[in-house]
Amino acid sequence: MVANTNNNEIEPEERHSDNIYEDKIIFPDFKTGPLTKYRQLSTFCYKRMNVLLEGEEHIRLKHRIWNFMEKHPDFQRELETPSLDRQRQVANKRGQLLWDKQFYGLSDYVAAPHLSLALAQGMFSYENSFAVKYSLSNGMFPSTILSLGTERLAKYAAKIANNEILGAFALTEISHGTNARGMRTRATYDPKTREFIIHTPDFEAAKCWVGNLGKTCTHAIVYAQLYVPDDTYQGLNAFLVPIRDERTLLPYPGVTVGDLGEKVGLNGLDNGFVMFNEYRIPGENLLSKTGDIDADGNYVSKIKDSRKRLGASLGSLSAGRVNICSLGYVALSKAITIATRYSACRKQFGPEDSNEEWPVIEYQSQQYRLLPHLATAYALRIFTMWIGTANVDLTFRTIMGEDTSSKGMEIHAVSSAAKPVCTWAARDGIQECREACGGHGYLKIAGLGELRNDNDANCTYEGENNTLIQQASNWLISLRRSNANFADSSPLGSVVFLQDMDAILRTTATESSAQEALQPDNLLKALNWLVAFQLDRTVQRYESLRKQGQNAFETRNNIQVFNAQQLSIIYAQRTIYYVFHRFVNDLPPSNERNVLATLLSFYGADLVTKHIGSFYQGGYFQHKAQAELYHEGILTLLPVLKNEAITLIDAIAPTDFILNSPLGMSDGNIYQHLQRAIVQAPGVFERPSWWRDVTYKEYLQKSKM
Amino acid sequence: MVANTNNNEIEPEERHSDNIYEDKIIFPDFKTGPLTKYRQLSTFCYKRMNVLLEGEEHIRLKHRIWNFMEKHPDFQRELETPSLDRQRQVANKRGQLLWDKQFYGLSDYVAAPHLSLALAQGMFSYENSFAVKYSLSNGMFPSTILSLGTERLAKYAAKIANNEILGAFALTEISHGTNARGMRTRATYDPKTREFIIHTPDFEAAKCWVGNLGKTCTHAIVYAQLYVPDDTYQGLNAFLVPIRDERTLLPYPGVTVGDLGEKVGLNGLDNGFVMFNEYRIPGENLLSKTGDIDADGNYVSKIKDSRKRLGASLGSLSAGRVNICSLGYVALSKAITIATRYSACRKQFGPEDSNEEWPVIEYQSQQYRLLPHLATAYALRIFTMWIGTANVDLTFRTIMGEDTSSKGMEIHAVSSAAKPVCTWAARDGIQECREACGGHGYLKIAGLGELRNDNDANCTYEGENNTLIQQASNWLISLRRSNANFADSSPLGSVVFLQDMDAILRTTATESSAQEALQPDNLLKALNWLVAFQLDRTVQRYESLRKQGQNAFETRNNIQVFNAQQLSIIYAQRTIYYVFHRFVNDLPPSNERNVLATLLSFYGADLVTKHIGSFYQGGYFQHKAQAELYHEGILTLLPVLKNEAITLIDAIAPTDFILNSPLGMSDGNIYQHLQRAIVQAPGVFERPSWWRDVTYKEYLQKSKM
Repeated sequence: MVANTNNNEIEPEERHSDNIYEDKIIFPDFKTGPLTKYRQLSTFCYKRMNVLLEGEEHIRLKHRIWNFMEKHPDFQRELETPSLDRQRQVANKRGQLLWDKQFYGLSDYVAAPHLSLALAQGMFSYENSFAVKYSLSNGMFPSTILSLGTERLAKYAAKIANNEILGAFALTEISHGTNARGMRTRATYDPKTREFIIHTPDFEAAKCWVGNLGKTCTHAIVYAQLYVPDDTYQGLNAFLVPIRDERTLLPYPGVTVGDLGEKVGLNGLDNGFVMFNEYRIPGENLLSKTGDIDADGNYVSKIKDSRKRLGASLGSLSAGRVNICSLGYVALSKAITIATRYSACRKQFGPEDSNEEWPVIEYQSQQYRLLPHLATAYALRIFTMWIGTANVDLTFRTIMGEDTSSKGMEIHAVSSAAKPVCTWAARDGIQECREACGGHGYLKIAGLGELRNDNDANCTYEGENNTLIQQASNWLISLRRSNANFADSSPLGSVVFLQDMDAILRTTATESSAQEALQPDNLLKALNWLVAFQLDRTVQRYESLRKQGQNAFETRNNIQVFNAQQLSIIYAQRTIYYVFHRFVNDLPPSNERNVLATLLSFYGADLVTKHIGSFYQGGYFQHKAQAELYHEGILTLLPVLKNEAITLIDAIAPTDFILNSPLGMSDGNIYQHLQRAIVQAPGVFERPSWWRDVTYKEYLQKSKM
Repeated sequence: MVANTNNNEIEPEERHSDNIYEDKIIFPDFKTGPLTKYRQLSTFCYKRMNVLLEGEEHIRLKHRIWNFMEKHPDFQRELETPSLDRQRQVANKRGQLLWDKQFYGLSDYVAAPHLSLALAQGMFSYENSFAVKYSLSNGMFPSTILSLGTERLAKYAAKIANNEILGAFALTEISHGTNARGMRTRATYDPKTREFIIHTPDFEAAKCWVGNLGKTCTHAIVYAQLYVPDDTYQGLNAFLVPIRDERTLLPYPGVTVGDLGEKVGLNGLDNGFVMFNEYRIPGENLLSKTGDIDADGNYVSKIKDSRKRLGASLGSLSAGRVNICSLGYVALSKAITIATRYSACRKQFGPEDSNEEWPVIEYQSQQYRLLPHLATAYALRIFTMWIGTANVDLTFRTIMGEDTSSKGMEIHAVSSAAKPVCTWAARDGIQECREACGGHGYLKIAGLGELRNDNDANCTYEGENNTLIQQASNWLISLRRSNANFADSSPLGSVVFLQDMDAILRTTATESSAQEALQPDNLLKALNWLVAFQLDRTVQRYESLRKQGQNAFETRNNIQVFNAQQLSIIYAQRTIYYVFHRFVNDLPPSNERNVLATLLSFYGADLVTKHIGSFYQGGYFQHKAQAELYHEGILTLLPVLKNEAITLIDAIAPTDFILNSPLGMSDGNIYQHLQRAIVQAPGVFERPSWWRDVTYKEYLQKSKM
């Protein structure tokens, strides 16, 4: 432990500065090396770019966190993968240490709620397990109690604020995840004792996948089907359930709680399962904002429709989805940092009859492996700041009592489509970066395997991507079918353009050169058409299936492939592009703006090429050669952006300590870092203890394993 | 160890049978359960399908191996991930145990070389690390000595045959992989002592990624730049280099050999690196088939061009690529088995106002997540049997002295494109299966993470996919540019159709219904057009860049994106489809053939939809609604193939023991298997030893990690 527990670490005077551009902790001078050449080729300042993207306060906060970690003994990396138990221990300790520092406490939140994005980025850039664990205990658990609970749970709120209890959020069951209404954990009200009896009928109804439940939580918010006397069913409700003793950490009688074991990733997080055996909890432990038991033992609620109650009750998941978009950005930005820097340093082949070798980033094929993901990282940086801020603002206004339902609905729709699109973008980008680093990218120390394994969870939790994404298409279809006013339904502006949907459907591509095709406004026009076209054909298919006699359930299922699912994806992509476009438009002229505008063109053109078939199919492309313009445009921009790539990376890369990959260090000395990392692994030069198994075959026959 | 070391395990009489369909070890009766319904829905026999796909002898051999493993204590699975050291120990032991059994020895190879595919499938279906290790020691190492060495290395061949030495293949260096000519390990001939002095100038020239080198090999085939007296450079040559003592397993003086450490996957395999310090080896250890040092100390070779010598020397990598295509199949078939069976058992949601829940495979969106990968698994099963057999035949004919250069060239081209396409298909399929299994697919015990991590290496070794794939386009472009006769260049038939390339380019889609679009012949016609179009536009671009003054090196680099790379992919996809199509056409009428024909249609239509943009761009689709036919066709086939899916899986699934996933067992009791697997993990219900860190904060502050 460091002795100093002040928020501000003491740094040599000359390194910290009030002028952020002079702050050598935040923006250190890069060492001269293989990357210097590319830094000189670029046309803009990485520091100014970083400030444009994130703002000074955001940058300062995340660097305070990174700086703390870099100096703290318990945040130093281990040289080989620890045991599962030790991974959990470390994640728990790191979370607690960070909590102690209060880098961003309650008063900070009240003063500047949007900086919660910087706290999250600071943590998740380091490592996901501890950060998820921290977010569950200090974010999701207390915020659910605040939003769904009432005053009577104030004592718990105080304990959480003092970090005396550790919480979990238990919704998913072994045999029911997405379908929350199908859950089978039961809460029966006993009016005699004013208690709820929580019961798990069988293993299939065990709560599972619950983060913090496996080894550490003392309490869990448990969703159970509520039955009041006379066996009246009152729908799924949330209860605050004591799980383990607050001192001994032993489970209470009636609670069988276990660990889900090893996972593909996130192994520092103790996901668990729990079964309750007629387990009694106090009546006051119902989170009662949406409904409560009155003195006569009857269930009373202002919201009569049990589905709407459930919707309100699960509303807190929406914020989670917005946050996961940011996690996708963080993972992608780390991966693309590693692969781009590596590609600028790794040399292979060169012109014939020459001894010169080229950095692999000089090859067109490598450029097209990296630059789309670099552009996506920028698009997601801008988009996730925007939606994160909008969501924080929404939460704040809701707490203040404002009617935020239509904004809430739009954020729900956008995040239901964007969470899949962002996490899949990270998934695909990380994979491409892994492969783009060749064999060395397959070393564990390169870090890409861990990024992939951890991000993989983002595709599933808080709404499995393929299922969640239907929420967005459902919303768009219902707006269109009900002839709703798109502008009124869109306080955030994601569907305002669809006011003119019918006019948009009549537009066609008029560009006749690559240069015209690359114009950001023209690209927006194309993407607007694409959303309109996809919405129109999806609604047509919907109507046609209904006319054929399919009911709503069947119809919703049978419009997914080629229609509704694509619609949601395109809607999210168009929204991300739109936010990026508006961001660039709103900037005053600068070198940074110029590069962002080029990146925007590249990003938009690449999006268009992903949907070329639809542009022809829907008649937006009238000439068969139309697609060539976008291809030509992309090929023209590849060498231009290649020269900006390293500086673009510098503007979004975390510090070397945080990045923690020998392939992606800011000095570009890939082989020196690689050598150091390889030879430091335990036993690297040692003969194995079982060497006789190799050279004495008769020994192997006898050896026990 | 089991006492019985005969090849044939003793089984109860009634279970084994000469009639393979009656053999209950190979084709056990499935237990009644959630999958029974789907087995009854299907229209064909899974046993007959399996025999059609693989042949009886292939099936018998792989099952002999699986059966041995299932009974052997050292092939039983561990309940948590062992340490790195133990993973290596286990992989070494398993390889040795399998070698002892000689399921497929040299005499078996001579009698039936194509059954080497069954041996590989038998091993790789169980686990990749030990299987790669085994293949390197018993396949690549001896076969390279046989093909590049001469009689004077006979004593080593004998030692290998007796399993007395363990070999490795050392080509890649830290800073050079794909560019073999850029390697810097040096071999200088000393005519006085008739020795070679092997020297590594620096860490960047260390041989690395060498399987078996990290902990276990005694010898390595090392590629080094050969210099003879007067410093004459003679190109890259292969040497048999002693690494470790054959008894003590300690490295020889002058050899610094270490372990590359943890990797993303394949952690049972001890990849290593090695540096030589003026290390002397006998002159006879040059693998001298392509060139040798004569009595006067001069280098002599029948092949004058050093590049061609290198080509001949690296020829053995081609067989490796063919084999990797099969590994892609094995990985994909396991993943799709897990996800499809899970999807038929996992229920979620159902019609409104009903308590019935549907298996998720009943949903259109889930069908379209799984069935394309199931179809691909079948396509790869048929394709990899075909190319594997062709490759085995080629090797055999080459050994017999036949001129196989043109067949060798075609296999090189096909495998250079197919290895990327097959391993990427596995990559994407495994990922989709992981996500399609939701949270439970994220458990380590589900097995999908390991499949992904292990298959990931297939995308990189034996030629990084993106670089390797250029070999195929280079070949196609040169054939077209030189006006070669495509039929003469194509003994395997992969480009015979391009004889009529100009006529093909003039064809257009004439289908006017989904039914017509789904006709296998029509789909082949479309794919033929697609290859021709892509080859034509790539060659046009090539010529145009050359005319603009770019040299051959620049031109090759600058035609990759949208052109040459796509060309290779499309060529491989069309070849896979073509082989599948021919396979189905050659079958006599049967229920199995009917289902395969439907699967072929589905596979082909799905391929077409992946390239819709090109079909419009090149004018093959003349009407904007043309693509709809393929979409409609796919949507029509989804529910049809859904009913066949479980039986299709049964026909390619390994045994439950080999599959080793609670989500994919043949009885479909997913939750029972899941429960058993979860509660068996060590310490699942235990309080952690560091529990005070959670409940006594002051304790945490002091605790050391």
